[in-house]
Amino acid sequence: MRVELAKHYGFCFGVKRAIKIAEDSKNASTIGPLIHNNEEINRLKSDFNVKTLHSIDDINDAKKAIIRTHGIPKGDLAYLKQKGINIVDATCPFVTKPQQICEQMSEEGYDIVIFGDVNHPEVKGVASYAKTRTHVVLSVDEVKNINFSNKIAVVSQTTRKIDEFLEITNYLVTNYKEVRVFNTICNATFDNQDAAKELAKRSDIMVVIGGKNSSNTKQLHGICKEFCDDSFLIESEKEIKNEWFKNKNRCGVTAGASTPDWIIQKVIGKINKI
Amino acid sequence: MRVELAKHYGFCFGVKRAIKIAEDSKNASTIGPLIHNNEEINRLKSDFNVKTLHSIDDINDAKKAIIRTHGIPKGDLAYLKQKGINIVDATCPFVTKPQQICEQMSEEGYDIVIFGDVNHPEVKGVASYAKTRTHVVLSVDEVKNINFSNKIAVVSQTTRKIDEFLEITNYLVTNYKEVRVFNTICNATFDNQDAAKELAKRSDIMVVIGGKNSSNTKQLHGICKEFCDDSFLIESEKEIKNEWFKNKNRCGVTAGASTPDWIIQKVIGKINKI
Repeated sequence: MRVELAKHYGFCFGVKRAIKIAEDSKNASTIGPLIHNNEEINRLKSDFNVKTLHSIDDINDAKKAIIRTHGIPKGDLAYLKQKGINIVDATCPFVTKPQQICEQMSEEGYDIVIFGDVNHPEVKGVASYAKTRTHVVLSVDEVKNINFSNKIAVVSQTTRKIDEFLEITNYLVTNYKEVRVFNTICNATFDNQDAAKELAKRSDIMVVIGGKNSSNTKQLHGICKEFCDDSFLIESEKEIKNEWFKNKNRCGVTAGASTPDWIIQKVIGKINKI
Repeated sequence: MRVELAKHYGFCFGVKRAIKIAEDSKNASTIGPLIHNNEEINRLKSDFNVKTLHSIDDINDAKKAIIRTHGIPKGDLAYLKQKGINIVDATCPFVTKPQQICEQMSEEGYDIVIFGDVNHPEVKGVASYAKTRTHVVLSVDEVKNINFSNKIAVVSQTTRKIDEFLEITNYLVTNYKEVRVFNTICNATFDNQDAAKELAKRSDIMVVIGGKNSSNTKQLHGICKEFCDDSFLIESEKEIKNEWFKNKNRCGVTAGASTPDWIIQKVIGKINKI
């Protein structure tokens, strides 16, 4: 059986990087869950004694704090520094970017528009870096109710869709003189989908690893089925059936955005033995 | 008869300003026709001895040169200065703006995109101010064939349509990290149309003044007819007929983009006498 992993699968670049940082930071505490996967959080706790704090208010006893991929507000960062806590920054570089843009653009006097959810930790962090008038919006209708100056800088929460971002920038470009658009959308989810499609097209069987209730995993499975009839969705290697692989030569493997690499490796190990 | 002029009509701001400048610059020469209206060019010649040169190569005998609304390339301006010619700048401020933007953005290392016609004098002038890679494009398809750096600044020829401009900026925002969009489109033509519509709605009769072959005047006339049945297109006051105004109280007046004010005033003078 020839097994091939999709070009993009599972965790995005930022999450993979954060986990590596956590593994290298024994006995540290993350402020909020590092990723949305309990098995992985438990593994970091048992193998590296990396604890998960509910919020920054629980920081008291911690010596070393890991900042997760979403980043944190500028004020919280200052608070940690002031308390003399050793800070390990696992903020995704794709999130650091809009933080820096907000800071610089507001220093240059631009009104700031952040396309995103005002309650999302990433957006709270990004918004905290702006000093000038900052507007967090989720739709072009919200933008229409705002009177901007003639210099506007626009960024996006990394996980938003480009179509809705363009609706907002189109409105602004049409109605204001200078709009400085920073496309800070990260295509990780879409990259996984594109790679799954590409691999499914040239595979005899596709194995999709991820939560059966995870909408992003189900979407991946749907895409694979479209291009490869024998596409199976599993949560772990235990669900693999030998009969699936009869008369097949090429097996493609992909995984949802919350599936840790070690689960994927177990699946591949088992397929290789068939 | 109550006569009311449309809120926006005839010459745009930049052309009106250029004519005023020419009237104040007796014995000067314009490089290229100041506006696209021969009657007006003849009037400036006979009343103010303002001559029209075919091109900058005919400048030899001139002491004073008027730069028209389109502006001229930076090199041509330097040439005039070097020859010691007294320069009267009637470049429309809405054209000076993209010239300045191109100069500044290329100094800051941005790739420059100019949405416009590479052969149009305005665009030639604007493009001459950029030092970095500059691309003059008329469609998004042309843009797709270009490999840009990740910092792009975009301006537009003043008379282009916003829809096509947005097609280009949408492509760039989707595919590049930072796009600095300067909406340098001037809405004068659309302002005239909007104002004609608004006035036609509340008039008993509409008089539209302009060339009967001018597409922009015909468009204005069409818009007026849609909202006021008794809409008449005339080139001068001589065509006015008294019978048009029988049992009418409110007469609206508008004019195409190449119609001088003095022709409009003659028309209003005659209507007022009815």
